[in-house]
Order: sequence, then C-alpha cells, then structure tokens
Amino acid sequence: MKAIIHVGLKPGVLDPQGRAIARSLSDLGFNEVQQARQGKVIELDLSGEDIALAESRVKEMCEKLLANTVIESYLIEIED
Amino acid sequence: MKAIIHVGLKPGVLDPQGRAIARSLSDLGFNEVQQARQGKVIELDLSGEDIALAESRVKEMCEKLLANTVIESYLIEIED
Repeated sequence: MKAIIHVGLKPGVLDPQGRAIARSLSDLGFNEVQQARQGKVIELDLSGEDIALAESRVKEMCEKLLANTVIESYLIEIED
Repeated sequence: MKAIIHVGLKPGVLDPQGRAIARSLSDLGFNEVQQARQGKVIELDLSGEDIALAESRVKEMCEKLLANTVIESYLIEIED
C-alpha cells in the first residue's frame, strides 16, 4: 500500500522559500509569476492491507513527525 | 492561472531525506513503513490566459531554476 502526504504551510504563514522562488524567477525574466509557494510531498510504502487502519496510522505519523501542525497543514491519500 | 509543479528525485538517486523519515518513523514504532521518499511541490500564480504558452514557460522555469534535472524529474500541471 502507498500513502502520499502533501504538507504545506497554512494560509497566512510567511513562506520565505516561496518568496525566494518568486523573486528568482522574476530576476530570470519570468515576469508572469505573481506568487510562489513551496510545499513537500512524502510518499510512504506501507505493509498491511487495512486501508482505514493505514489512514489512521499515517495521520498519527503526520501529527508526530511529518508536519509541524502549528504552521503546516497536511492531506493524506492512500493508494492500494 | 495556476501552475503546480511536482519535483522529485529520479529513480535510483539516493534520497537521504526519505531515509531519515523512514528511520525516524520506525524509531517511533511505525514498523509498517517500508520506504519513504520526499519530493517538493511548487505552486505558481501566473498572469496571462494562454495555457500552452504557460506550460512552455513553466517548463523553461523548471529547466533553469526549479529542478536539478541531473537528479530530479518534474511534472507540470496547469490549472485555469
């Protein structure tokens, strides 16, 4: 089973990486870029067959390690 | 218009971040995790209306700045 976890900054949280990307793109002449945000994606290969259990375990992983829930939100997809 | 760019390591490239995540999850008792990989997602807000043009410009951004094409591959989605 595979879990795909999208982790991104919550709206309103300052995103210095995104700003650096937007500025660098503008410096390179890509003037159509109005804003940039950067997030991360974590893919996990999981053993086991129970999708509901996997989802609740991955949620626990996010809360404990993968996301900083003060400033980040996450979205979990489970693929069989 | 919005562009979503997924950047990840090419298969076979060592992924130290992914390894660190897998080991940390295992240390926390999540023994079902067999492998972990980490990638990034960049979201761009773009001005302009021409989707084909946007796609070719974003491809250029990836080649020049957003991805290290020696070790990373990228996937571009354009949303209206």
